Amino acid sequence: MKTKELSTSISTLDEHGVTIRGKDLVSELIGEVTFTQMIYLQILGHLPTPGQVRVLDSLLVTLLEHGVGPALGARLVYMGAPDSIQGAIATGILAMGSQFGGVMEVVGRDLEAIIAAPDGDAEAARIVAGYRAAKKSVPGFGHPQHRPEDPRTIKLLKVAEEEGLAGRYVAALRTLAKAVDASLGKHITINATAGIAALLGELGVPARIMRGFACISRAPGIVGHIYEEIQNPIGLRMVMMAQDAVPYVGEIPPKK
Amino acid sequence: MKTKELSTSISTLDEHGVTIRGKDLVSELIGEVTFTQMIYLQILGHLPTPGQVRVLDSLLVTLLEHGVGPALGARLVYMGAPDSIQGAIATGILAMGSQFGGVMEVVGRDLEAIIAAPDGDAEAARIVAGYRAAKKSVPGFGHPQHRPEDPRTIKLLKVAEEEGLAGRYVAALRTLAKAVDASLGKHITINATAGIAALLGELGVPARIMRGFACISRAPGIVGHIYEEIQNPIGLRMVMMAQDAVPYVGEIPPKK
Amino acid sequence: MKTKELSTSISTLDEHGVTIRGKDLVSELIGEVTFTQMIYLQILGHLPTPGQVRVLDSLLVTLLEHGVGPALGARLVYMGAPDSIQGAIATGILAMGSQFGGVMEVVGRDLEAIIAAPDGDAEAARIVAGYRAAKKSVPGFGHPQHRPEDPRTIKLLKVAEEEGLAGRYVAALRTLAKAVDASLGKHITINATAGIAALLGELGVPARIMRGFACISRAPGIVGHIYEEIQNPIGLRMVMMAQDAVPYVGEIPPKK
Amino acid sequence: MKTKELSTSISTLDEHGVTIRGKDLVSELIGEVTFTQMIYLQILGHLPTPGQVRVLDSLLVTLLEHGVGPALGARLVYMGAPDSIQGAIATGILAMGSQFGGVMEVVGRDLEAIIAAPDGDAEAARIVAGYRAAKKSVPGFGHPQHRPEDPRTIKLLKVAEEEGLAGRYVAALRTLAKAVDASLGKHITINATAGIAALLGELGVPARIMRGFACISRAPGIVGHIYEEIQNPIGLRMVMMAQDAVPYVGEIPPKK
Repeated sequence: MKTKELSTSISTLDEHGVTIRGKDLVSELIGEVTFTQMIYLQILGHLPTPGQVRVLDSLLVTLLEHGVGPALGARLVYMGAPDSIQGAIATGILAMGSQFGGVMEVVGRDLEAIIAAPDGDAEAARIVAGYRAAKKSVPGFGHPQHRPEDPRTIKLLKVAEEEGLAGRYVAALRTLAKAVDASLGKHITINATAGIAALLGELGVPARIMRGFACISRAPGIVGHIYEEIQNPIGLRMVMMAQDAVPYVGEIPPKK
Repeated sequence: MKTKELSTSISTLDEHGVTIRGKDLVSELIGEVTFTQMIYLQILGHLPTPGQVRVLDSLLVTLLEHGVGPALGARLVYMGAPDSIQGAIATGILAMGSQFGGVMEVVGRDLEAIIAAPDGDAEAARIVAGYRAAKKSVPGFGHPQHRPEDPRTIKLLKVAEEEGLAGRYVAALRTLAKAVDASLGKHITINATAGIAALLGELGVPARIMRGFACISRAPGIVGHIYEEIQNPIGLRMVMMAQDAVPYVGEIPPKK
Repeated sequence: MKTKELSTSISTLDEHGVTIRGKDLVSELIGEVTFTQMIYLQILGHLPTPGQVRVLDSLLVTLLEHGVGPALGARLVYMGAPDSIQGAIATGILAMGSQFGGVMEVVGRDLEAIIAAPDGDAEAARIVAGYRAAKKSVPGFGHPQHRPEDPRTIKLLKVAEEEGLAGRYVAALRTLAKAVDASLGKHITINATAGIAALLGELGVPARIMRGFACISRAPGIVGHIYEEIQNPIGLRMVMMAQDAVPYVGEIPPKK
Repeated sequence: MKTKELSTSISTLDEHGVTIRGKDLVSELIGEVTFTQMIYLQILGHLPTPGQVRVLDSLLVTLLEHGVGPALGARLVYMGAPDSIQGAIATGILAMGSQFGGVMEVVGRDLEAIIAAPDGDAEAARIVAGYRAAKKSVPGFGHPQHRPEDPRTIKLLKVAEEEGLAGRYVAALRTLAKAVDASLGKHITINATAGIAALLGELGVPARIMRGFACISRAPGIVGHIYEEIQNPIGLRMVMMAQDAVPYVGEIPPKK
């Protein structure tokens, strides 16, 4: 392996105190910036504008809570390890894989491709044709309940526009949506995942780490469910319900 | 098992849309509240006051970043599973156990005990004597670098005072600190962990879930390190450094 | 921090090949020892006797499978991250906390205390009295279905006896059981967790890492459930069942 | 969603006891089968032949231990959460992603494709050409230390031959190796990952869950490292070494 200089640009602790991304933790960050500003600073390396903060807040708020069902895995791990709630929170985050946070990344990459192409409309048509050839739905489009529009997407895009941040990624999303509708001959919902991918793109977040934002927002979502599980447990009942609902259909030993 | 009514007070999805803690997601939350307000709403069930928001922001900002060393485990998992960054983020959260987030909980319980006791000073003395009898340092006190004071604690308590939120928990922390100093005959630093436990108490967070807030804040901290690892990797070098630094001292098979 | 020599006794890779615990991987381990022998070698540092192998096999076989309910968390994480089955397996392991694997450790510590005490009967009585004073059941005793005896425990102890490995820990378990029955005035089941703790003690495994063996055995248990989930999925139905079974009882926004 | 019958073929608990894959846990499994037999039974649904057991043992033994470096993430999580060793074990498993266990899956899929093709040699050439066109090395081929052969692969394939289990998958691996060598004009090492993928194929394990076996074997590997970390800790020193080795190169606040 070639020797390469090892370095970090995130933080240091020296005799003057803690420096994070060029800011003094005590005098410039604690009590001076919000958590959302700090998240942006940590990941992207500089403080966001007020408009970027509102857009980031909007999408993190959208992603935070998804109901008892998606939180069930975390609640079940809590039951087994109530003194280690970090394990239950980690479980909630482990579920943010290719079927959820990962979809956001795929949309993000598609938007990046449309932006990078000399002819965005042609690129969007090519992308849509690719999914259709593979008999897949286009990631970021369609929703079982929200039709014809996902009101969360409309609100997210409205916030971006109000903050002057509906730029290339939002335009690319509209280009992609047009290609989707043209290909299917009817209007398909732009779901919230697609809206969030476009907004993350506007904030300077590459597709490569977009699902990290789903994980960031899911953490407090799960803490809420764990706190409710402590006060009003449902986990054991759900385990028993699953055992009852899923009968064993294998063999039974003969001589029992 | 006794039958008990199953219920949740967190969220629902019906024909009108998503409701979270009594608020309509689209019209009342997305674009209308910050991520910090949403975190508080999800976990504690109601929106915070502006003072509570600033206090919560302050402690989440304090907990977010801790350097390359504590992020190393997450960076190493990223190396093995770069397409599943949720696994690396989960790793960062799994490290928030008894030695870190857990200390906050222990301080929180000690403060709760001091508040609940008829004589807080006597209870604080009793708590300190208990740790000393067990030859343990008092959780939340002492710091290898920050002496005689931890500037983060000073800033955190200052923010609480400015917001009119330095109440029973901050008072209990000062009572405990007095007992610590009296017992050891010298001043011991009140570290940031103790300051954060006191502020979480002021926000209405029970000790039982305090470490959840360390997990919430660590998630974006780790995303920052993963993004840096993608751009400027150190993981493989750290693995090789560990292999070199830790020689094998077991037996070697004779005939090799 | 004091400088201390860093070292490992587990493995090394040099020009002759891989050495693990003093054995050459290729000529002495692959194809020459079983997985169970290798597990023992890795953790305890030397190869087990045939009797130790059978005892270790017995308890790992006992711990492996626990039904659809306990595997549900892992199946749900698989749904979200089907391309990262390591996340689902990790979830199954994260549930091996204080309420399951941890109970084994507590039993292990109680047995260690009985063995170390000058008067084992008195120590057992003291331990039982302690749990009763705290209004707790004695860890390792009692079972909702298996009464008056847990047939798994009987079989596990029989295997240990057949292999000449029913020594101090099995005796300590019988001493503890006698104290439990005397204290409650009736016979209480010695459950499989207690039997496994005793057998792990006989194998030289300290209480401190006993729950590690629950994690080792749970890993293939979960892989079986993930493979079934791929072929015959139940996860999404379980999520929907949970959503239906747990109604929202919080406020609804007025103007919806 | 279409209603489908929910069912499991893995296990049940009824008044007669626990049944796993048609076997009575107490009378037919505990003390009667080895852990390796039980792993095969749980995942593949029936008991293995003696030859299948030896092959499965061989590959699980090969995968178990990989040195202090790859175990470092787990050791670091142990430091933060020593009372929750399930978190450290989970960390070791989370690292079994696309770069390690995932490579096995890719090889498994390539072997499945060669077996399914009417002309295996042509399919192998096509596969190799595909990787070369993408400027990637062929998964399962090449090793930094083991040249010209990986002695682990040679031993694994020898075990399969001795047990009469070197069938279609081993043949497909040799076909693939021939295509690799032809394409590059020189001999490339068949590494252990490729050998294990071929053996798993022979055992009836589909590529889809092959990485599960890496996770199964890594669990006891990590327990060994955690037990050593308890007795002879290296984690904190590694964290400090990382902090020292990776200097901060970002900005420093001006007035410090």
